[in-house]
Amino acid sequence: MTHDRTPESCDLLIEAGWVVPVVPHGVVLEDHAVAVRDGAILAVLPIREARERFAAKENVSRPDAALVPGLVNAHTHNPMTLLRGIADDLPLMEWLQGHIWPVEGAVMGPEFIEDGIALAIAEMLRGGTTCANENYFFPDVQAAVYKQHGFRARVGLPVIDFPTAWAKTSEEYFERAGEVHDQWRDDPLVATTFAPHAPYTVSDENFERIRMLSDQLDIPVHLHTHETAQEVVESHDKHGQRPIARLDRLGLINDRLIAVHMTQLTDAEIALCAQRGVSVVHCPESNLKLASGFCPVGKLVKAGVNVAIGTDGCASNNDLDMFGETRTAALLAKAVAEDASAFDAATALHAATLGGARALGFDATIGSIEPGKQADLVCVDLGQIETQPLHHIVSQLIYATGRHQVSDVWIAGRAKLRERMLVDMDAAALVANARQWRERIAAIRLT
Amino acid sequence: MTHDRTPESCDLLIEAGWVVPVVPHGVVLEDHAVAVRDGAILAVLPIREARERFAAKENVSRPDAALVPGLVNAHTHNPMTLLRGIADDLPLMEWLQGHIWPVEGAVMGPEFIEDGIALAIAEMLRGGTTCANENYFFPDVQAAVYKQHGFRARVGLPVIDFPTAWAKTSEEYFERAGEVHDQWRDDPLVATTFAPHAPYTVSDENFERIRMLSDQLDIPVHLHTHETAQEVVESHDKHGQRPIARLDRLGLINDRLIAVHMTQLTDAEIALCAQRGVSVVHCPESNLKLASGFCPVGKLVKAGVNVAIGTDGCASNNDLDMFGETRTAALLAKAVAEDASAFDAATALHAATLGGARALGFDATIGSIEPGKQADLVCVDLGQIETQPLHHIVSQLIYATGRHQVSDVWIAGRAKLRERMLVDMDAAALVANARQWRERIAAIRLT
Repeated sequence: MTHDRTPESCDLLIEAGWVVPVVPHGVVLEDHAVAVRDGAILAVLPIREARERFAAKENVSRPDAALVPGLVNAHTHNPMTLLRGIADDLPLMEWLQGHIWPVEGAVMGPEFIEDGIALAIAEMLRGGTTCANENYFFPDVQAAVYKQHGFRARVGLPVIDFPTAWAKTSEEYFERAGEVHDQWRDDPLVATTFAPHAPYTVSDENFERIRMLSDQLDIPVHLHTHETAQEVVESHDKHGQRPIARLDRLGLINDRLIAVHMTQLTDAEIALCAQRGVSVVHCPESNLKLASGFCPVGKLVKAGVNVAIGTDGCASNNDLDMFGETRTAALLAKAVAEDASAFDAATALHAATLGGARALGFDATIGSIEPGKQADLVCVDLGQIETQPLHHIVSQLIYATGRHQVSDVWIAGRAKLRERMLVDMDAAALVANARQWRERIAAIRLT
Repeated sequence: MTHDRTPESCDLLIEAGWVVPVVPHGVVLEDHAVAVRDGAILAVLPIREARERFAAKENVSRPDAALVPGLVNAHTHNPMTLLRGIADDLPLMEWLQGHIWPVEGAVMGPEFIEDGIALAIAEMLRGGTTCANENYFFPDVQAAVYKQHGFRARVGLPVIDFPTAWAKTSEEYFERAGEVHDQWRDDPLVATTFAPHAPYTVSDENFERIRMLSDQLDIPVHLHTHETAQEVVESHDKHGQRPIARLDRLGLINDRLIAVHMTQLTDAEIALCAQRGVSVVHCPESNLKLASGFCPVGKLVKAGVNVAIGTDGCASNNDLDMFGETRTAALLAKAVAEDASAFDAATALHAATLGGARALGFDATIGSIEPGKQADLVCVDLGQIETQPLHHIVSQLIYATGRHQVSDVWIAGRAKLRERMLVDMDAAALVANARQWRERIAAIRLT
């Protein structure tokens, strides 16, 4: 009889009303448990069996909650959280040139990066996000902050054809990129990407160098592209090619490419991305708010392109709410496809988890609840009025759940949020610090 | 000296970090208070002056919160809250014929209406909504439930050219409409509208009768129209006119009309609506989810059309989150208009409050924080991590605030939510009841 066996030890046993593992697709496991040891998922099994099989150091029981993989924010500029709402409802160039760039110019530096990312990590944890694909300056500082807070991330190594606070010349961008990459190459939590800013700010020569180095270092290339119609027109004027055709000529259209935005796509470009294994990061709220256009998510999914979800930075969103972003993605895709069955709830949840993990090259490690993967896990309380009655768990998660229903979060098996409380961050201190930045930035803008 | 004067008495003095009165447009009053007496707003003034001038029976201080007018959900089918998520990601006709209508047929009756609206009221209060424009069957039951819970509403008197559980013949629809209207004609909280279902389900004769009666009874006409391209094509085939042209012929394009959805509009139709004072209720999430199309909100606002916001019912949304809906509206309008400055934050907040009030003919009573209006008020906690730093109050309210940041709600000066707790509703009992409905509906669907 099973209860005569000596129970196996584990560090953590989480029991949930429902486990939504993402793999297999669309499956909901009722009254299941997840056993965790050494930061990894050991088993996913019915609660009754779990109680017989495991003796856990810690037991967590959430009968009204769904346990889902931690969400992956596949495109963000987290230091910009400190600029949340600073200049809204403006045309793109007035927004950038009149507001964002002058303020960034005045605040850019390690302190801004550190404080902005810390605030962002707190917001992400409170909203069920456990991994970020970061894209900003000072990746050395970024990496240290993510590591300090035990948060999983890829940090972008910036390349842009003009001088910034981070580097002055192309040579310096690549030199510093190499240094940061070397420092983090073996870290289990924090890794790098190459992050050339966009096709219109990076030369052919630098793109070719990035391709060569990304192959050598085995890291993805994280790139804004086909964000607006204007970008495509200007590329044609300057290079005689649309950005994707130019990137293809330069050898970058491949399975290392994390192509962000992609609101302007021909059917041939979609087929090319599918064939080459490009990942597309869809940032619906940024695309809407900046009036950039509509990413054809339904067509991409149909063509077999891996789709991930990103919030973009807080100056163009204005939050890091992956539940909200995924909901917007699921709703918007249907209207764009003129098909109410496009991008269904299970597919949207896949994009927000395993799709993001795959885009980042982390799909062997995270993105689904499967034995052997890291225990990046999120409990969502579905017992609240806003998600009743519970006719369909995955529908409720995508179409009705607010991020405040996230109760508990673990990264690599370590508790980061417990019953809505941050485990190792001081929320009051973060708010006080954000208030100081408000005053500092207000003073800059007055001068 | 002012402090020698005898203070005036009032029932309630709410002090807030910021009061956003909606009138004047876009204004934010820092450190202001609102005094309430006999359910109405007595004064809006700086906190320091308020403390000198008023002796209140109750004082509420919310230094980290913004006080805004209660949100007006200008189109909803609240009993359908019990069907939340029952059938998602399906083409419209399969959704209606295969799922929604069969289930509705089996559950329709006073108990379903009562329980669904009670759950919806709890959800609306927890999300800062204080007034609903209801559209479903059994308006007699609806009105009684809204009244019982002290919630402001207009209930639609349904007219549809086929028999339902509510009425069998046109004669009976009008007879019952008259009865319900008579019963509620003088109520300060609950009133009626005529609610012909849609142009494709109501005859010319019945529309003409509705026009005559709505004039006599002085009530609005609440109508789904121009929801889909198919509806417009079919009207042209059947009547030789687009629905708006047909409604104009029948005398219904006027300032009593609450036109819901309006995703298919020519510039001439927009100009006509502006000239005649039609109100448009924009339901962006329902339009996206059912792939109905895009309402040209930017053009409507530019033309001077009154725009309101509605969630639609929970079977096509799937929530009653007016903060979320307004955010979606503000984001989507920019992409549809191809203009990042379209439908700015202050204009979106206006639509969710005074725009809704005006659509319902309630703009003399609610929709803004002005002396003489009813004290339908909502406190939003902006001190949380998700809305820091506070560079711009109205931007934070529209682009970053989640409905869970609503801390306190009053309707006609009566507290309905205090520090997130429902004052006179039992949340646990509502959830338990929703669970029973889940079981009942699951049993119906299995048979």
